[in-house]
Amino acid sequence: MKHLILASTSTLPDEKYLTYLLPELKIFFKNKSTITFIPYARPNGISHDHYTRHVAQAFSKIGKKVKGLHEYKDPIAGISEAEAIFTGGGNTFILVKALYDLDIIKPLKNIIQKGVPYLGCSAGSNIIGQSMHTTNDMPITMPQDFKTLGVIPYNINAHYLDPIPHLKHNGESRETRIKEFHTYHDTDVIGLREGSYLEVIGADIFLKGPHSARLFQKNQEAKEVSQIDGKAKDL
Amino acid sequence: MKHLILASTSTLPDEKYLTYLLPELKIFFKNKSTITFIPYARPNGISHDHYTRHVAQAFSKIGKKVKGLHEYKDPIAGISEAEAIFTGGGNTFILVKALYDLDIIKPLKNIIQKGVPYLGCSAGSNIIGQSMHTTNDMPITMPQDFKTLGVIPYNINAHYLDPIPHLKHNGESRETRIKEFHTYHDTDVIGLREGSYLEVIGADIFLKGPHSARLFQKNQEAKEVSQIDGKAKDL
Repeated sequence: MKHLILASTSTLPDEKYLTYLLPELKIFFKNKSTITFIPYARPNGISHDHYTRHVAQAFSKIGKKVKGLHEYKDPIAGISEAEAIFTGGGNTFILVKALYDLDIIKPLKNIIQKGVPYLGCSAGSNIIGQSMHTTNDMPITMPQDFKTLGVIPYNINAHYLDPIPHLKHNGESRETRIKEFHTYHDTDVIGLREGSYLEVIGADIFLKGPHSARLFQKNQEAKEVSQIDGKAKDL
Repeated sequence: MKHLILASTSTLPDEKYLTYLLPELKIFFKNKSTITFIPYARPNGISHDHYTRHVAQAFSKIGKKVKGLHEYKDPIAGISEAEAIFTGGGNTFILVKALYDLDIIKPLKNIIQKGVPYLGCSAGSNIIGQSMHTTNDMPITMPQDFKTLGVIPYNINAHYLDPIPHLKHNGESRETRIKEFHTYHDTDVIGLREGSYLEVIGADIFLKGPHSARLFQKNQEAKEVSQIDGKAKDL
């Protein structure tokens, strides 16, 4: 049975990396000793090794080992052998380009379908939706396609940010951008606030954490939701 | 001689569309009666007609007519016959995809090189740089390429936004995103604050408006600049 945790962010303000999620992750990854880490999103452009060390440090607090997927000669084999997966945040364009270039989208879908637990943060959550069309990231590289894994029938907008009152700035708001997305696409978008996350268990999708989510649907006013009605698909 | 105005934004807070620029545009477009408007960036997903009417209303205040490029059966001819050009803001992905799909990148470069005055706002300014890799927009569609006109030896980051003090949010700052860009690319990036604009006259690039700009260069600390040293190229 599929089991995923899809977090808006890895890190809450004034906290250390993953701290707020560790109690949940201790349960989520119970009976797993090593987590295979997908480091390709490279936040701040840091190296795969550097990023993997950072992640390993956080997971050592709950007694888990971490192995970077980049350490495998054959990343497809690395994915297929994983007992648990974590895809970290960073730049979604860089991440999706790497998934296509390394041809690991299908192997990733396969092991998720098999029930290998998958944790995503930010970009790592985005890729579980239908497409990366609703990322906030800068398009610093062009992936082969914007289509992503499609485990859930939604797109995620991670780090969802409500309009900032009195900010004198005419860049588009997050809501305006997602409205533009719906000029061209039909997929519902979940604006996931920092500290909140989705837990997918089989077909069910649960919203967890302290905040409601903002649901954007084509030709409708955005609305606040405290639960997710759509069902995860078989892959 | 090339002559361009490249604005960070079309609209200042609490002002009407283009108001702050109109005195400058009256001079910039003197002796021109009709401005050919490129509406493809479609802010908020509005129609080309709607957007063109909005622009025409603003330009009527300085006695200019506006004709939307979408009104031409042959947009390449529309560009080539233009006595002045304005490309409006909106979504840079949508805009660049249209430029490629309609095959008007080269005609646009040609008339800019010939000295037809070109005004860009936001997305319309982004496309004058080397690439659209540093847009803030959401990737709601995939253009054929991220390469843009390359009139100036920079990329522009329009609506450049300084970090907001005390904002408890872990989405990447603009500076972090541009730093990630420089992990993969060498092009200098000009962070252009709202109200400021570049005027290109022949090879010279002048920074105008109330603010300094923020210059991002690979492997260097970002810095404030009050002038632009690079030279526009022949196309």
